[in-house]
Amino acid sequence: MEKAVVENKQVIFKGYIVGVPKETDMEIRVGSKFKVEAPKGSGAFVVKNLYLSCDPYLRGRMRDFRGSYVPPFVPGSVMEGFGVARVLDSDNPNFKPGDLVSGLTGWEEYSLIQKTDHLRKVEQNDMPLSYYVGLLGMPGFTAYAGFYEVCSPEKGNHVLVSAASGAVGQLVGQLAKIHGCYVVGSAGTSEKVDLLKNKLGFDEAFNYKEEPELDAALKRYFPKGIDIYFDNVGGAMLDAALLNMRNHGRIAVCGMVSQHSQSDPQGIHNLYCLVQKSIRMQGFLQHNYQHLHVRFLEDITGLYKQGKIVYVEDVNEGLESAPAAFAGLFSGKNVGKQVVRVANE
Amino acid sequence: MEKAVVENKQVIFKGYIVGVPKETDMEIRVGSKFKVEAPKGSGAFVVKNLYLSCDPYLRGRMRDFRGSYVPPFVPGSVMEGFGVARVLDSDNPNFKPGDLVSGLTGWEEYSLIQKTDHLRKVEQNDMPLSYYVGLLGMPGFTAYAGFYEVCSPEKGNHVLVSAASGAVGQLVGQLAKIHGCYVVGSAGTSEKVDLLKNKLGFDEAFNYKEEPELDAALKRYFPKGIDIYFDNVGGAMLDAALLNMRNHGRIAVCGMVSQHSQSDPQGIHNLYCLVQKSIRMQGFLQHNYQHLHVRFLEDITGLYKQGKIVYVEDVNEGLESAPAAFAGLFSGKNVGKQVVRVANE
Repeated sequence: MEKAVVENKQVIFKGYIVGVPKETDMEIRVGSKFKVEAPKGSGAFVVKNLYLSCDPYLRGRMRDFRGSYVPPFVPGSVMEGFGVARVLDSDNPNFKPGDLVSGLTGWEEYSLIQKTDHLRKVEQNDMPLSYYVGLLGMPGFTAYAGFYEVCSPEKGNHVLVSAASGAVGQLVGQLAKIHGCYVVGSAGTSEKVDLLKNKLGFDEAFNYKEEPELDAALKRYFPKGIDIYFDNVGGAMLDAALLNMRNHGRIAVCGMVSQHSQSDPQGIHNLYCLVQKSIRMQGFLQHNYQHLHVRFLEDITGLYKQGKIVYVEDVNEGLESAPAAFAGLFSGKNVGKQVVRVANE
Repeated sequence: MEKAVVENKQVIFKGYIVGVPKETDMEIRVGSKFKVEAPKGSGAFVVKNLYLSCDPYLRGRMRDFRGSYVPPFVPGSVMEGFGVARVLDSDNPNFKPGDLVSGLTGWEEYSLIQKTDHLRKVEQNDMPLSYYVGLLGMPGFTAYAGFYEVCSPEKGNHVLVSAASGAVGQLVGQLAKIHGCYVVGSAGTSEKVDLLKNKLGFDEAFNYKEEPELDAALKRYFPKGIDIYFDNVGGAMLDAALLNMRNHGRIAVCGMVSQHSQSDPQGIHNLYCLVQKSIRMQGFLQHNYQHLHVRFLEDITGLYKQGKIVYVEDVNEGLESAPAAFAGLFSGKNVGKQVVRVANE
């Protein structure tokens, strides 16, 4: 097999940032040469990237802070994140040319994968390939593990989901409905609210930006209180939810996208509710629940094929669109899971 | 038996308050007449109060707020709280004259007890009677249930206790030591720090008022981080603890005495740590764990009699001292569990 040398367009992380990520924090580098060859003895393999995933957690890698669960990016080098890719050349017996894989890859057209244990083979099963960074990827697994393992859901529970049309929230709400819960989602545009009510099957949804008082909004949708709050945002919504939790309520703290910008100098004031109402508030990361991953894939694939769940994606075309797509997450520009299509399958 | 009429000194709740309780929010009423007689058919009984307990949660009953787990006091009427008392007259077959009881009673010399299911009989077993509002009462049970049921303690865990010499904290720390943990307490005077290190057996203790940076103090005592934070105070200590928790850490939220005064307008900023470090933060009330109460009394009485735990009380003499004793809780004036002795046994 001839080992081609190709041009490899890349998204470069320019340098550490303060506040929310901007499109200009990254730049496109063209003209890099890349040899489609996994070096002998390396155990590595080479992929052509098909889909890249824009996830809020990447914000944490754009700061020079080593106390987090992922190390920071190196200024001047290529961004990385979850993706779906096709193997072109391999020195690893577990991955063969032609295989489809999902997991950690570079924000570039071609990648040499050396940390091969951060990728899984994708079995061909008629699911859209991009779902392996969404419904069947990290966000979907976050929703699945978070809802079933952290929220202690019971039939009839009243559930609030924030960032509800996002990559994680949309699945949490649908799983909660399937579980027999009453589910209300909050989102930041009327388009998203429509989506939640008319496509994703939420019982109710509201645009938090149009609510002068979040506390009043929650009292309107939850006159008897909230059993489960699946928190993707932190900040003012968390504070309002605390006031409206029922006794023995559960708050799954999945993310605090509103806090990435440090836009909440006031902090959270209503934690005293934790005591009064015996509330459990649990932060979690999906990678704590890897033992459930096989069951997750089976369950969610099954539900999807039975038409019991849907998944909304926002797909941008071309690697060049990745910086804007990623920055857009922090202003809620995306409708559904934000994906970048780098190449056709 | 002759039914005496006695003078009944009382502590009256004057009216709803804002901020921390002051001695002048209560007043002593003398000259009330009280008939030592449980009305026939009432199922009630009459007690002579011996010890009254000053507990921070009573602050919640001094506000006109009905959303809490206890209803507010009625302005102009007698305060109530936990106490130890002797039955003088009874129309209830379960309580006989001469019986000692503990539970909810009035802040007065004599009380007619109508809600008899809020009291338990005290079995004579050589334990100091006042302990039935402390070590063997609500605070002790809070420590016991909170430590064993909420903190998920493991041998070798590194444990931080705030308000560590208080009614709850001092027992939490001792139970943690018995469990094989490394235990550090924070308190607000050097006298309390001495007590923690030299009498209560904590590994380390510090005066939070002398620490310019709580984060730095915690890093000094927990260079590898905190597994369990038993939080009695909320506020700045909670924020600093969040920064220093280990992965999968547990925070038992028992009380937020620093928040009763609304002295923390800045709120809590570091909740993002819950996600990063998969921290569980659990508010709780001891009355959720009543099924453990018999075991609690046996365990703690046993440990006390074996000399494995001690209990420090701050006993004020006379009902007249109750308002100042209670108000003193909020400035940390008490050293150990604050009790008021109303009468000799």
